[in-house]
Amino acid sequence: MDRKKLVVIGGDAAGMSAASKVRRSQPDWEIVVYERSPHTSYSACGIPYLIGGIVEAASSLIARSPETFWEKHQIQAKTRHEVEKIDPKKKRVMVKNLATQRTGWETYDYLLIATGTSPIRPEIPGVQAQGVFSLSTLQSGILAKNYVTANQPKRAVIVGGGYIGLEMAEALLERGLSVSLIDRNEQVMGTLDKDMGLLVSHYLEDQGVQLFLEESLTKIQTDAAQKVCAVETDKRTLDAELVILGIGVKPNSELAADAGIQLCDSGTIAVNDRMETSEPGIWAAGDCASSRHLLKNKDIFISLGTVANKHGLVAGSVIASEKATFPGVLGTAITKFKDMEIARTGLSETEAVALAIPYQKTTIESSTIARYYPGSGKITVKLLCRKDNGLVLGAQIAGAQGAAKRIDTVVAAIQGKLTVQDLVYLDLAYAPPFSGVWDPIQIAARQLV
Amino acid sequence: MDRKKLVVIGGDAAGMSAASKVRRSQPDWEIVVYERSPHTSYSACGIPYLIGGIVEAASSLIARSPETFWEKHQIQAKTRHEVEKIDPKKKRVMVKNLATQRTGWETYDYLLIATGTSPIRPEIPGVQAQGVFSLSTLQSGILAKNYVTANQPKRAVIVGGGYIGLEMAEALLERGLSVSLIDRNEQVMGTLDKDMGLLVSHYLEDQGVQLFLEESLTKIQTDAAQKVCAVETDKRTLDAELVILGIGVKPNSELAADAGIQLCDSGTIAVNDRMETSEPGIWAAGDCASSRHLLKNKDIFISLGTVANKHGLVAGSVIASEKATFPGVLGTAITKFKDMEIARTGLSETEAVALAIPYQKTTIESSTIARYYPGSGKITVKLLCRKDNGLVLGAQIAGAQGAAKRIDTVVAAIQGKLTVQDLVYLDLAYAPPFSGVWDPIQIAARQLV
Repeated sequence: MDRKKLVVIGGDAAGMSAASKVRRSQPDWEIVVYERSPHTSYSACGIPYLIGGIVEAASSLIARSPETFWEKHQIQAKTRHEVEKIDPKKKRVMVKNLATQRTGWETYDYLLIATGTSPIRPEIPGVQAQGVFSLSTLQSGILAKNYVTANQPKRAVIVGGGYIGLEMAEALLERGLSVSLIDRNEQVMGTLDKDMGLLVSHYLEDQGVQLFLEESLTKIQTDAAQKVCAVETDKRTLDAELVILGIGVKPNSELAADAGIQLCDSGTIAVNDRMETSEPGIWAAGDCASSRHLLKNKDIFISLGTVANKHGLVAGSVIASEKATFPGVLGTAITKFKDMEIARTGLSETEAVALAIPYQKTTIESSTIARYYPGSGKITVKLLCRKDNGLVLGAQIAGAQGAAKRIDTVVAAIQGKLTVQDLVYLDLAYAPPFSGVWDPIQIAARQLV
Repeated sequence: MDRKKLVVIGGDAAGMSAASKVRRSQPDWEIVVYERSPHTSYSACGIPYLIGGIVEAASSLIARSPETFWEKHQIQAKTRHEVEKIDPKKKRVMVKNLATQRTGWETYDYLLIATGTSPIRPEIPGVQAQGVFSLSTLQSGILAKNYVTANQPKRAVIVGGGYIGLEMAEALLERGLSVSLIDRNEQVMGTLDKDMGLLVSHYLEDQGVQLFLEESLTKIQTDAAQKVCAVETDKRTLDAELVILGIGVKPNSELAADAGIQLCDSGTIAVNDRMETSEPGIWAAGDCASSRHLLKNKDIFISLGTVANKHGLVAGSVIASEKATFPGVLGTAITKFKDMEIARTGLSETEAVALAIPYQKTTIESSTIARYYPGSGKITVKLLCRKDNGLVLGAQIAGAQGAAKRIDTVVAAIQGKLTVQDLVYLDLAYAPPFSGVWDPIQIAARQLV
């Protein structure tokens, strides 16, 4: 029997889902996963809720531990092991055991790179101070939570108004901190158009977040104990005992680049729809690998657990000699801040303009469910379609409970190449506790027809 | 200028949305709507919530009154007017004013029949007793509510475990009544497969509804005041001071049939995708008109406000000489009983078997949102696809808050001719408060691939 050996670099969503898929298809293969952090398969998206205390135990964010992977799936998940070099010619990787600091070569038949991302940390004075956190790994989340518990900060500054920024703002408000948010753009939520981002900005302010837009962080001030005590922007100084950096992440692709593997302009590892890199026998998956944007028709960098899992499933299938292809992404995203849900998919107006795609747009206001039914709330939907043929291009939603997950209908519509006319007559589900007779998505579509 | 006259028979969803559409396109036409009940444009779907007290005022179920239609849209909506005959040759209708009992002929250039449905009342002794209600019109809902308030019944029997039956069971439990439910089938919710219906049956029992399945109502017993005091089935006698008949509705198509207009086997008025009947110059829309089922490829009877609105929009557009076609329905439906949400679309397994369509099926259990996030609940998804090419055929969902509206993703997937393979890789929205990394729909799709 031909017993192959799969080595996976990175033990989170993409890596472990690929490893699990290979195990299901190839019960006899040797599968080894190297993970430099102490944890496997955790929900990075849950970290803000851990710090906010909405989720109590860090352990509840871990889907499966290394022990479980071994006992149930005979997958060796070696945490605190860092891969330092890939040698594609000799089909081997150099691995350092971070506990013992010992280094050695390990061979592979198949290699999957699933190294994820690292948070971008601005090169400004004081960024290494205690009390400054960028949340990427579960470990960083635990450290931040412990810091907050131990130091009981009163004032927090969040830098960056993206998903992490909003979720952390909610978490810290819940804990009773006063929260300021700095963003260098005109609005928070840069993946939304300005008009939709404005709705979110207003709501943040309503709920007590102090917004400082079109400002950039320039310095972090520290006290004698090297703890953060204030931040400076290009316009002002804000006292703060806690700083959260949510200004984005970058793909961990240096290891691949050093091995001669081709990267994309976005810095991700270039892969085809089978997740194969430029180097035979080496796959890449998850945040570090490129994704094809179905409407932009180019490879983009996207950092999302759901995409990582799909990458992993495809990579694992192909490695195990099964047929699978990853069709691409639409840039779908969803988040909430207190009672406002926010979602987007496909092209924003800004993106349609940049791509010179002829488009029509509308923005409607409606109610999440029948207006007379208790719990009904406001929902705003911005919908875009092609001007020439009516094909749905994208949507942005902001609204009360039940608003945002409606984006999935638009996702399926785009992927199924439906027009706004089709959307109008889609047989969507209606009953008063769930929707008006015309779903808000359809009200927007009617405007466009 | 050519000032045409549109006459509409029936002033609810289909009729009024058609009239409104014609008004928007043809500002000068005369538009007259005859409605035999006292109300226009109300939400029949809201009636159970009115009786349960979740919705307080009957008036809040009325979208627009006859006065509003006249003042804002110059549409004459004549309530308590019944059309008794259609004379297609002379393009006129015979109308009786129910207040004065006077009858006269009214001419039209275009006629729309939107006569809706009538509840089916079993021909059994006692069915006319006081305290026996079948809820179809707002008027019947108001009468039932008043009866409950005046008589304070303690025990209710609901006949029929469909949407109305479940919603009324919830409403009456809320009001503190003891509730029994009789259904002649093995399970409640006959539009679900047996396995899914069983989940609902169990939950109804858990929540205190006494279920009597595979039983038929045979008689209603009355007291000296001609009020209901008990019901008899083929197996037992149940004391009850209130009886709700929810055993279905039939299309009001006699008026059309009498005028020589063609009906379908289902008893609905036969229409093409422009809502044209067999008689030139006469359209039909809403519950009384047929709908093409996109997967069954035949005309079916469907009674739903959302379909009626779409019918009305198409009929109004075509009457006003605009292009519009109604593509058809998928039999989508949604409801809730207390904390359980229920939805279905497309073909059930029972329907696929009956149509001899080769299918594959799976049923999965998952969580509505990330398991570690507060408010996570159980969701069961049954998904069907074609065996030969993997095209999505249908889904049934039962679960906690947030479960059921996910059916819309499947609706768009079916209409966009996506396969289960496509569903697996759909870029659906994920964040812990909204979903697991794999949406439950995708977990089911993965099982089928």
